Amino acid sequence: MTKLGNNMYKLVSREARSAPTLIRIGETIIGSGYFTVMAGPCSVESETQIFSIAKSVSAAGATVLRGGAFKPRTSPYEFQGLGKEGLCYLRAAANEYGLLAVSEVMDTADLSLVSNYVDIIQIGSRNMHNYSLLKQAGKINKPILLKRGLSATYHEWLMAAEYIMQAGNPNIILCERGIRTFETHTRNTLDLAAVPALHELTHLPVIVDPSHGTGLRSLVPSMAYAAFAVGAEGLMVEVHPYPDQSWSDAKQTISPEVFGLMMKRIRTMQSIFRDEHALPC
Amino acid sequence: MTKLGNNMYKLVSREARSAPTLIRIGETIIGSGYFTVMAGPCSVESETQIFSIAKSVSAAGATVLRGGAFKPRTSPYEFQGLGKEGLCYLRAAANEYGLLAVSEVMDTADLSLVSNYVDIIQIGSRNMHNYSLLKQAGKINKPILLKRGLSATYHEWLMAAEYIMQAGNPNIILCERGIRTFETHTRNTLDLAAVPALHELTHLPVIVDPSHGTGLRSLVPSMAYAAFAVGAEGLMVEVHPYPDQSWSDAKQTISPEVFGLMMKRIRTMQSIFRDEHALPC
Amino acid sequence: MTKLGNNMYKLVSREARSAPTLIRIGETIIGSGYFTVMAGPCSVESETQIFSIAKSVSAAGATVLRGGAFKPRTSPYEFQGLGKEGLCYLRAAANEYGLLAVSEVMDTADLSLVSNYVDIIQIGSRNMHNYSLLKQAGKINKPILLKRGLSATYHEWLMAAEYIMQAGNPNIILCERGIRTFETHTRNTLDLAAVPALHELTHLPVIVDPSHGTGLRSLVPSMAYAAFAVGAEGLMVEVHPYPDQSWSDAKQTISPEVFGLMMKRIRTMQSIFRDEHALPC
Amino acid sequence: MTKLGNNMYKLVSREARSAPTLIRIGETIIGSGYFTVMAGPCSVESETQIFSIAKSVSAAGATVLRGGAFKPRTSPYEFQGLGKEGLCYLRAAANEYGLLAVSEVMDTADLSLVSNYVDIIQIGSRNMHNYSLLKQAGKINKPILLKRGLSATYHEWLMAAEYIMQAGNPNIILCERGIRTFETHTRNTLDLAAVPALHELTHLPVIVDPSHGTGLRSLVPSMAYAAFAVGAEGLMVEVHPYPDQSWSDAKQTISPEVFGLMMKRIRTMQSIFRDEHALPC
Repeated sequence: MTKLGNNMYKLVSREARSAPTLIRIGETIIGSGYFTVMAGPCSVESETQIFSIAKSVSAAGATVLRGGAFKPRTSPYEFQGLGKEGLCYLRAAANEYGLLAVSEVMDTADLSLVSNYVDIIQIGSRNMHNYSLLKQAGKINKPILLKRGLSATYHEWLMAAEYIMQAGNPNIILCERGIRTFETHTRNTLDLAAVPALHELTHLPVIVDPSHGTGLRSLVPSMAYAAFAVGAEGLMVEVHPYPDQSWSDAKQTISPEVFGLMMKRIRTMQSIFRDEHALPC
Repeated sequence: MTKLGNNMYKLVSREARSAPTLIRIGETIIGSGYFTVMAGPCSVESETQIFSIAKSVSAAGATVLRGGAFKPRTSPYEFQGLGKEGLCYLRAAANEYGLLAVSEVMDTADLSLVSNYVDIIQIGSRNMHNYSLLKQAGKINKPILLKRGLSATYHEWLMAAEYIMQAGNPNIILCERGIRTFETHTRNTLDLAAVPALHELTHLPVIVDPSHGTGLRSLVPSMAYAAFAVGAEGLMVEVHPYPDQSWSDAKQTISPEVFGLMMKRIRTMQSIFRDEHALPC
Repeated sequence: MTKLGNNMYKLVSREARSAPTLIRIGETIIGSGYFTVMAGPCSVESETQIFSIAKSVSAAGATVLRGGAFKPRTSPYEFQGLGKEGLCYLRAAANEYGLLAVSEVMDTADLSLVSNYVDIIQIGSRNMHNYSLLKQAGKINKPILLKRGLSATYHEWLMAAEYIMQAGNPNIILCERGIRTFETHTRNTLDLAAVPALHELTHLPVIVDPSHGTGLRSLVPSMAYAAFAVGAEGLMVEVHPYPDQSWSDAKQTISPEVFGLMMKRIRTMQSIFRDEHALPC
Repeated sequence: MTKLGNNMYKLVSREARSAPTLIRIGETIIGSGYFTVMAGPCSVESETQIFSIAKSVSAAGATVLRGGAFKPRTSPYEFQGLGKEGLCYLRAAANEYGLLAVSEVMDTADLSLVSNYVDIIQIGSRNMHNYSLLKQAGKINKPILLKRGLSATYHEWLMAAEYIMQAGNPNIILCERGIRTFETHTRNTLDLAAVPALHELTHLPVIVDPSHGTGLRSLVPSMAYAAFAVGAEGLMVEVHPYPDQSWSDAKQTISPEVFGLMMKRIRTMQSIFRDEHALPC
């Protein structure tokens, strides 16, 4: 057993539940044996923008549309998101193209608002230690996408999930999105070993965000393939029709064309390696 | 000039205001030329406990009483704080011994409650990137103690302060409390260079928390002396009559006796080095 | 272009040479389009041990036999390696099974000795900044496997390669083996983004060591698949017939059986994805 | 007792020897109760330069002259040091002004050469894990100044000292010089808590290098005061008559004038706090 294998987290641990959690949203299933791709812009910028992206990513095989309406920005002078207006556009675009929608909530005061518009509620890296938000998220009847904190250990991350589950919500998707290290070439260091490590420690699904994980557009497809190969249950990827014109995260955003090629290759991998992740060790 | 010396943070920078910010609360002044010691338990545990500690730390020379009522704990199964009851005890103990009171707020929903009981509102490390909370703290008419995030750069920390100031509250105290590194002997790595570095970058006062900064009781006094010597405007220290019995942070909590000896030595340093921090470089 | 794309490293950069470096040793080619697997024990422990492992890893498809004779151990009381005796056994076992041999050198004084016994000379993480050793390695007529330093940036790592090439040796293989971060569950954090990032910055081949990169046996196969998927030119893997009895690095060493299954799966990936790594971005 | 208090390091631990190690070189004593200042240029650049600096730092109260002759530079195209010529100048300047001399050795092959010219042999950060060099340094009859590795834990650092002592040399001075973290404003993060932490773990003296520890000239004096206050047994500081014209480490080098003012203030602290470091905890 692993170092973390004590009873500190009771509900999210493999000991508590050996079967993997499968999260069903309509006809979509997120969890072991499935590979769910969530794609879309960093920020919802306009109705036109989000509809255009929804169309592209849907055509390429994504099943969840991402788009930020409340944006956690380092500077108060940067674009803070369209708020409720952005959520409306996101919902409409998702509906139009048969996608699920995911968006971030940053404050307990906005939880019910965001919950009304999306299918999956994201708690971002900067709020992974926001225990008030975690507790309230545990009372919502929608799946929670819980991103790893900038410098959170696996233990702390799983404990954050435990807060949510202990408060009543068992539908949690963990998202590895890179950690803060001394390396400055990449925005973060994408810790792909988190995927198999967490699969040992928890029954919850784990997806990977190669966009924030690298911060560099040209590295996104390669890291997405690696995320598939390592056994992740899905991806979250930033896509924009004109990546350089993105209002936020431009450097790490890929175009619909690159996204399409990337998805094609992932489908090839899927066709071959389905059901082959288990390996005796 | 420094690498961070661009206009990214407009209000908190030295360029915006060359004179140091002095924060006056009643007869207490926090800022350049003063050395304010905030001391008390990690958590308010009972009326008896906080009164006992208030008496001790007041006698030793502290002027601000700290005590957590809403506790950000890694695990949902750990003590979460006494909430409003804890705030009542804290206020009463502070009043009894002529101290100011500081306590942490973790949620925008609790801001006005906490604000009613304390003189200084703490935003903790885990919420330094909680931009909703920062914005609301900017609308409160009480000084904010803003702790550095677990892995926040100086730039991000100052930007968090900028959020508060931009929203209307100019009274911000920065608190260095250690950052997360690879070293595991200490709980965190206390980055004392942050003090002179921030003094170049901002007009805001900077204090140091050697308790969280080291996580080890035996290192607290030495690091407190170093914090004084490096030019900090104060300390935040965890003190408990029976450190080993603290409900939280026991390993890093010192006794009133050690606190008293430490304060005696700091007063000696103060008597000699007042007004001597400036040095041509 | 990338942040590192200045002329600081002149010889190892893509600007200096756009075609990938292919390193030929006998009939083996290491570099773009090939996937070379180096496997063997952390330490050569005995003639029997290394012959047994050589047989296993050769049968499974490895083409290079690794085995430490001079061991950089944290404690002087740990096994320091068999030295010249170990090199003899390693060479004999490699010859017997038609493998190339790689082993680490830790001191300029041992360079010519090690060079007499192996086909590839390893400079380990702890000596990546040992500039005297790098300069001398530049004068040897054998390929150098240069592991990334424990906390070396890409820039510093490429500069270490530049030292070797500038001194006359163009045959350098870079090996990502995990970096030191705050996470303690894994021994290191394997930075797979280094592979595509370095492919943009340099013409040198990049391989991955998932054994040191994770420190945990059960994570090695998954990370090996990810290394293949991300575009690495090979692997270095620790294999021992009785992993738990390894004299060093036991926790991260896999058995010949697991290695065999892992290699089988990698061959499947190879058969499909050969020549598909290029993707427009 | 502390987490590190097992028997892993036998000779350097407090358990092995409770009395602090005092290192006597001529009339100089380095260790508990003393505060030794080592100052000089990053690199010896010329006879004139090192004599000028020796005169200044001697006048200001330093007793050891530092100066690099073999320089570990990230790039092979940077100045690599004057080698033997630099050592000659260093020795002559030290003799002229009654100073001891310290300089770095990077290779076992240079140990006896360097040893002929200096009183204290420095093993730098980049070679702290160079076990061959540590073992050879253990056979030299001169004190060793062992700098902490860029990302070395206290445990690894003490184990490196154990290598030296186990090989026969008990005269080791530990030097905290900053560790690598995510913060980029400073060159490194100076971990002053290492001083009291190591004083609990080992009987060896610990000094502090605020020049490499911060990388920024304006922070050096403040951090030097903090190093004194925290209980260090000395300093190593980079001083150059024309800091901006230093051939290496210009940004972190202070002028003789600043050094003089800094030393004056440290002497004031010394006059007061001598023998006051012990505090019950």
